Amino acid sequence: MLDSVVVRFGPEIGVKSSRVRLRMEKRVCEHILKALEHYGLEVDELEYTFGRLYLYSSRAEEAAEKAARVFGVSSTSPAKRTSSNLSEIAEAAVKLASSALHEEAKFAVSCRRVGEHPYTSGDVCSRVGEAILEALGCRGVRVDLDNPDVTVGIEVREDKAFVYTQVLKGPGGFPAGTQGKSVCLISGGMDSPVACWLIMRRGSLPVFLTFNTHPYGGEELVERALECARILMTWAIGFKARAYIVPHGQLLDTVVKKAPRALTCVLCKRAMLRVAERVAVRERAQAVVTGESLGEQASQTIWNLRVISQAASSFPVLRPLIGFDKPETDELARRRGTCDVTARRASGCKAAPDTPAIKARVSEVAAVEQKLSLPALAPELISKAKVLELP
Amino acid sequence: MLDSVVVRFGPEIGVKSSRVRLRMEKRVCEHILKALEHYGLEVDELEYTFGRLYLYSSRAEEAAEKAARVFGVSSTSPAKRTSSNLSEIAEAAVKLASSALHEEAKFAVSCRRVGEHPYTSGDVCSRVGEAILEALGCRGVRVDLDNPDVTVGIEVREDKAFVYTQVLKGPGGFPAGTQGKSVCLISGGMDSPVACWLIMRRGSLPVFLTFNTHPYGGEELVERALECARILMTWAIGFKARAYIVPHGQLLDTVVKKAPRALTCVLCKRAMLRVAERVAVRERAQAVVTGESLGEQASQTIWNLRVISQAASSFPVLRPLIGFDKPETDELARRRGTCDVTARRASGCKAAPDTPAIKARVSEVAAVEQKLSLPALAPELISKAKVLELP
Repeated sequence: MLDSVVVRFGPEIGVKSSRVRLRMEKRVCEHILKALEHYGLEVDELEYTFGRLYLYSSRAEEAAEKAARVFGVSSTSPAKRTSSNLSEIAEAAVKLASSALHEEAKFAVSCRRVGEHPYTSGDVCSRVGEAILEALGCRGVRVDLDNPDVTVGIEVREDKAFVYTQVLKGPGGFPAGTQGKSVCLISGGMDSPVACWLIMRRGSLPVFLTFNTHPYGGEELVERALECARILMTWAIGFKARAYIVPHGQLLDTVVKKAPRALTCVLCKRAMLRVAERVAVRERAQAVVTGESLGEQASQTIWNLRVISQAASSFPVLRPLIGFDKPETDELARRRGTCDVTARRASGCKAAPDTPAIKARVSEVAAVEQKLSLPALAPELISKAKVLELP
Repeated sequence: MLDSVVVRFGPEIGVKSSRVRLRMEKRVCEHILKALEHYGLEVDELEYTFGRLYLYSSRAEEAAEKAARVFGVSSTSPAKRTSSNLSEIAEAAVKLASSALHEEAKFAVSCRRVGEHPYTSGDVCSRVGEAILEALGCRGVRVDLDNPDVTVGIEVREDKAFVYTQVLKGPGGFPAGTQGKSVCLISGGMDSPVACWLIMRRGSLPVFLTFNTHPYGGEELVERALECARILMTWAIGFKARAYIVPHGQLLDTVVKKAPRALTCVLCKRAMLRVAERVAVRERAQAVVTGESLGEQASQTIWNLRVISQAASSFPVLRPLIGFDKPETDELARRRGTCDVTARRASGCKAAPDTPAIKARVSEVAAVEQKLSLPALAPELISKAKVLELP
């Protein structure tokens, strides 16, 4: 019986000026329509009004689910549309409640109203509440405003009303493409896809960059990184992204064999950032994104981050997870769908030394790099990169 | 009747090597003792064992609360200590349950056991569950393992046991001081204290840096920033931090009057980062921390962040909130106690232009700075800074 979807924007968009807000909301609408088309979910009709989008679709539940995966959306609800006539609203609410309320369920009614009506929001709540109690009292359902199992939501907008019992949480953030692009380092591990997702949510589209560290790391990691990249792009349906796969094994080989072992990870990361900066220039991106978290690994001590950062001087390195605790990252990975891929067992990096430096010194690191001509390798590595178009 | 506190470490510490883990846990223990001493909470005795700290104190609830505000702590429980004798455990559990279980409450029992005992963990749970049902059955309490109102926890460790009904969540992260210091820009707004807290949680102690933008910003903002800094230091009891208050009004005056208006915010932020880098050198800090969030303000577009970042070349700029949505930051601010301070109304910055540049160009910005000799002002501003010792 559900025939429509209520889409709410924000919350971050809501604090912008009206002009910016309008522009962003319209963009979110476009992105939702692209996503629904992609999934073959037809929209019969739509209505946009400041702060809301109403979609009419016979597959309202699927449409609400897909729309809840578009950046800039605060939440969605598959709904039953009625006129603003109170009896019709109550009738629809009873029908919905009848399938949503189990035996002895506690429920609440909430109402939001825009326009002129012969009733108040409070009237709607009491009338609907009474109708539900009358129809379903035999099941032992009861009103509990503080701790309901189900909330029957009613949105009256001018001459229409929407009745729903589900609210699907959206990702929030800003619409895709409202910021410049970012080069996102993605490793096949748990953290980097989450970092990338967080930056995508703020409106930046990714250029993926992954390194093939064979024979030091398994080649399955590259596949895994690409799989994550594809999952990430399901959050920006209708957009394309490039993925660079850069051979890193030879450079690592030089580092492992000729540089002080304790510096391997710092040298490796600096080389990666140098490549990232070149990709950023080529792709006209504005930032580099990594999954680094302060202190999580030896290469991520504050001293080493400083040494690593100094290899990237023309682009900011954005580290959305820098202050995250590991369980928080894992939780986000689970919720964003990148977890299953990255939780699979993979061989660790064989280049990592037993006792990596905790406090590398930039002067020492730079001297080693010069001796081994590492900075000069970046252009060559990029020229050997495989470049894919995703999805 | 509560006489002890169970302190659990982690979760991030738990994934380190045993050697590092042991060192970190001992440090957390020291920090807890410092905090309890600070609050006048006497500890009669303590026992540390890998992964756990047991404190004996007649003010167990207060002690558990304070210990749950120490970085590196996963959770704490005020508890009743007994011997490992099953009858004694059951007796203590019934007493605790009697005050924790209201009429018709649903409860569960969980047990963790280390050492040799004539019973299994399962035996403990059934015996204690039965004892509670027997003693409190008249209240209509019942077992519900899936959705209990109260969980009675029992930790049997060799010849002792601890019984508790509360688990207070700690902040996690790493013990204070395990990373190098960070210069934390703190504005008196909602975001920057949260950013600072997240970096503190990862083990870095702050050097606070705030700018007095009078006459463009209210002087109350400086007071507010300092109040936040003091609150933040209650998360690192026993440590001291320096706060730099740098006069910024004159520089802003020059910027507002002589530079293109659209560039005000970018020029202001670059000037701040230059000062931050000098403070970092002076204080031997390793990073600069800001509360920036991608796209939240005009100065925080990805293009402007790039221009701003280029003013700081020798230290990484850590932006823990870069991928946060505003409600997530607000929620953290509420939980960390910095919200009340920053939610108070304050006048906005009067230097901000109506239409700030969204995509400033670094060449233009640098040319303006040279013309106005802005970079050269940094040393002078620092020499005029007021420096306080906190707390």
